[in-house]
Amino acid sequence: MFDKEIYKARREALKKSMSGGIAVFPGNSEAPENYLSNQYRFRQDSSFLYFFGIDEPDFAAVIDFDSGEEIIFGNDVSIDDIIWMGPQPSVTSKAEKVGISDSRPFKELFKVVGEAVAKGRMVHFLPPYRYYNMLLLSELLGIPCTKNGNDTRKMLAERSSKELTKAVIALRLIKEPCEIEEIDKACDIGYEMHYAAMKAARLGMKEQELVGLMEGITVSKGWGPSFAIILSQNGETLHNHMHHQYLTEGRLFVIDAGAESNTHYASDFTRTLPASGKFTQKQKEIYTIVSDANNLAVEMARPGITYREVHLATARLMLEGLSSVGIVKGDLDEMVEKGVMGLFQPHGLGHNMGLDVHDMEDLGEDLVGYDEDQVRSKQLGLGSLRMARRLKPGHVITDEPGIYFIPALIENWKAAGTNAEFINFDILKKEYYDFGGIRIEDDLLITADGCRVLGSRRLPHTVAEVEKEMAR
Amino acid sequence: MFDKEIYKARREALKKSMSGGIAVFPGNSEAPENYLSNQYRFRQDSSFLYFFGIDEPDFAAVIDFDSGEEIIFGNDVSIDDIIWMGPQPSVTSKAEKVGISDSRPFKELFKVVGEAVAKGRMVHFLPPYRYYNMLLLSELLGIPCTKNGNDTRKMLAERSSKELTKAVIALRLIKEPCEIEEIDKACDIGYEMHYAAMKAARLGMKEQELVGLMEGITVSKGWGPSFAIILSQNGETLHNHMHHQYLTEGRLFVIDAGAESNTHYASDFTRTLPASGKFTQKQKEIYTIVSDANNLAVEMARPGITYREVHLATARLMLEGLSSVGIVKGDLDEMVEKGVMGLFQPHGLGHNMGLDVHDMEDLGEDLVGYDEDQVRSKQLGLGSLRMARRLKPGHVITDEPGIYFIPALIENWKAAGTNAEFINFDILKKEYYDFGGIRIEDDLLITADGCRVLGSRRLPHTVAEVEKEMAR
Repeated sequence: MFDKEIYKARREALKKSMSGGIAVFPGNSEAPENYLSNQYRFRQDSSFLYFFGIDEPDFAAVIDFDSGEEIIFGNDVSIDDIIWMGPQPSVTSKAEKVGISDSRPFKELFKVVGEAVAKGRMVHFLPPYRYYNMLLLSELLGIPCTKNGNDTRKMLAERSSKELTKAVIALRLIKEPCEIEEIDKACDIGYEMHYAAMKAARLGMKEQELVGLMEGITVSKGWGPSFAIILSQNGETLHNHMHHQYLTEGRLFVIDAGAESNTHYASDFTRTLPASGKFTQKQKEIYTIVSDANNLAVEMARPGITYREVHLATARLMLEGLSSVGIVKGDLDEMVEKGVMGLFQPHGLGHNMGLDVHDMEDLGEDLVGYDEDQVRSKQLGLGSLRMARRLKPGHVITDEPGIYFIPALIENWKAAGTNAEFINFDILKKEYYDFGGIRIEDDLLITADGCRVLGSRRLPHTVAEVEKEMAR
Repeated sequence: MFDKEIYKARREALKKSMSGGIAVFPGNSEAPENYLSNQYRFRQDSSFLYFFGIDEPDFAAVIDFDSGEEIIFGNDVSIDDIIWMGPQPSVTSKAEKVGISDSRPFKELFKVVGEAVAKGRMVHFLPPYRYYNMLLLSELLGIPCTKNGNDTRKMLAERSSKELTKAVIALRLIKEPCEIEEIDKACDIGYEMHYAAMKAARLGMKEQELVGLMEGITVSKGWGPSFAIILSQNGETLHNHMHHQYLTEGRLFVIDAGAESNTHYASDFTRTLPASGKFTQKQKEIYTIVSDANNLAVEMARPGITYREVHLATARLMLEGLSSVGIVKGDLDEMVEKGVMGLFQPHGLGHNMGLDVHDMEDLGEDLVGYDEDQVRSKQLGLGSLRMARRLKPGHVITDEPGIYFIPALIENWKAAGTNAEFINFDILKKEYYDFGGIRIEDDLLITADGCRVLGSRRLPHTVAEVEKEMAR
C-alpha cells in the first residue's frame, strides 16, 4: 500500500475529470474454487486498488462527484472471525489509511446507491467481470439478470459508464513513479523466475517441473504469477496451459510468464529456449529474426510515435527475415499492407501493463489501447494489437514479437488462397510444420526521450547469450 | 483420468439409488481473476469430475434416471481457438473416453432441461457454489435471481435436490482403490512440501519464502495446493493467510498445507515447528499433548466407532494434559461434557477428504459428516466437527487435534464466566498469551480392521523427530 496522499491525489484527479453523479466501485469478493470456503488466492479489483488501496475482500466505495464525498463500505469482524482470521484493524482505520474518513457497514451501500437512484442521479460504474459483482450491481441498480451469465455481463457492460471508464483509463495509463518502482520489482521477480528455469531445464524433464519452480519463486518473492504460466514445446499455440510434455532433443520451448509484486503490479516476459541448450541452424535463423524485431521496438519506442507504427515496422523487419530464408517473397511494403505477417504472428506487438498484466482489459481493449482517432484493424495479427496509441512518457508496454508455424492456420490460408502470391506453402509444409514457435518479450517504460527496458537486468536475449546460460 | 469403466460404474450406481427424473450437472467455467480473460487455474467441479471425468471448462451433463440416457454438453473449438489453444479433441471423443456416446453443443442443454421442465419432470441439481453456475441454473430452471449473490445462492441451495445430494455423498464417501492410489500420491507430494519447508526454515526468513517453496513443489509434482497454504507464527489464528512475518527465535509456526494430485485428489497435513529448530520446555509440553492426541486418533479410528467418539476421546486426553500443566482443573469427564476443550480447540478433530480437501463441503457439512441419527452439537469446538459419522472401510478423514491460546477468545470466556470453574485464567494470561498455537494433522484411510496413515511416509511427528530434522 502506498502513502494515503497518493490515493487522495488520484481521487481528486478523477473528480476533476467527471461531470457529476456518483460512482460505485465494488471491490472483489473471494472466488470459490471447488466449494464456497475453498477459495482462490484473493485478488482485489485493480481499479479499486488504484483509488482505494484496500487489498481485502468485500469492500466497496462510492465517490460523489457533486459533493466530493467519499465513502468506504465494509464490515468489521466478529469474535468468530477473530478465531479463524485473527484480530483485524477496524474498517474505519483501514479507510483512514487511504485518506477516507467516512466508513460504513457494507449494507449501507444499498441505501446510498438507492438514494442516488431515487433522486434520478447518474450512477457510474465500471464494466464488471466477476459474476458475484454482476449479481451485486444487478441488485443495487435494479437491472434484472434474467439471462445467463454472458448476457448479464453484456447487459451490465452496456449500462456501465463510458465517462467513468475513460477517466479511469486516462489516469491509470500514465504510470506514477511509485508504480514504476513496483513494476521494476515485479520485473526483477520475473527475471529470477525465467533465469531459474533457463538454468534448471534438462532434456527429459517434464514441463510441469519448470512451471512449479517458477511459480514457487513468484510466491516466495511476490504475490504470485501475474497470469497462468505458459511453458510449452508447442510454442505455436499462443496460450497453452498444458505442461505434460517432456523436454525433447531438437525442440524449442516457449516460456511466457510474469510475476505480481506484493502490491499487485505485473511483469510479463517471454523467452524461447532450445530444450537441449543448443539451437539448430534453422532455429537460430528464425530466433534471430524475432530477436531483431524485439530490439527494433526498443529502438523505436519513444514519445510521439504510435505503437501501431512500431508494430508495423517490426512486422516489416520480420517479413524481410522470412523472405531471406525463402518462406515469403515479394514487395515488403505490400506484404505489410496485406497483413501477410498475420499468418506467422497472429497477435499484436504488445499491450499496456500495470496493475493488470493486460492493463485495464476489463475496461475495454479499444478504449485502453487506441486513441480517439485510431480505428482498429480487422486483419489477423494487426487486429489483435492491444496497444496502438501514440506513446507518451509513463506508458508501460510489452514488446513481444513472435513467429509461429501453426499448421492448421497455414492449411487454412492455403485452402482459401489467402495472400497465396507471397507465401511459399511448399517450404512451410516440408520444413516448418514441426518447428513450433518463437516469441521474445520485454517490458518497456516510455521515458521523456525514448524508452527503458524495465527491471534491473535484461534476460538473456541473443542466441549466444541463451546458449551461454544454458551450457551444461 | 481413470478408465471409462470407472465412470460408467459410478453413474450406474447413482442411477440405481435415484427414484426418477433427470439430473443436470453443470461443470465449472473459468474463474476471472482481475479481468475476464485473466483466469485462475481452472478447477473442475468435483462431482462433475467424479461422474464425468472431463477436466475442462464449459461442459455440462445430464442423466435421465427414467430412460437411463446420459448426455455430455460442450462446444467444439473454432480456428481462432486453435491459434490460442492448439488443436483439441472433439467433444464427441472426450465424451467417449468416459463412456458416453451422446454429446451435443452446449446450448442444447437449455432444450433438454427445458423439455423436462415443460413435462413437469423432476430436475435434480446439486447446490451451486460458483456464481456463474448460479446464473446458469437460474436461467435453466426459471428461478429468478432478483436478490444479491448470497441470497441467490441460498435460494438455489433450497431448491437443490436432497435426494441427489444424498446419493452422491453415499458414493463419494467410500473411496475406491483407484481413488486411494491418487490420495496416496497427493500425500507424497504433501510430504515433500512439508519436509522441504522443515529443512529450509531459518531464523530471519520471511514466512512467504517458505510458502513459495511449498507451492512450487505442489505445482511441479501435481496440480497445486489443495487449499491456500497456511504458514504462520500466529498459529492461534486458524486460517491465517498472511505470510509477511520473519521467523523469530522462541516462536512456533504452524504449516497447514496439502497438495492436489494431477487428477485432483487432495492431501492435508499440519505440522507445528519451532522457528529456531528447538522447542522450549513449555512448547514441548503442549506439543506432546497434541501429538499424543493425534496418535490416539490413529489408534482408535476403525470401522464401527463414530468419529465423534474419537473427537471426544482426544479432547479428554488433551484436557488431561492441560490439567497436568495447571491450565485446567476438575473432573475430566465433566470438562469434556461441558465443552471446556472448545476454548483451546475451537474446531473439530477432522473432516472427510477426497476430491475436495473438505470433501463435498459444497453438498452440505451435515449431510456429509453426520449419520441420520446424529445431531450436530452447538458447543464451540465439537459444533465445528465436520466428520462425526460411524466409520466404515474406505472413509478418508483427517486427524488434526490442536491447542491454541487465543487471547480474544479467552478474555471473552473470562468476561462471560464460561466454564470459569475449570479454567485457570491467571496462568493463561501470565504465561500463554504469546504462545500461539499447535496443530498436528495426518490423513487416515479406514481399513477393514483399523486405519492407515496415508502416504508412503509419515512426516516427522514427535518433538525428537522434528528437532532432528531441523538441526542445522
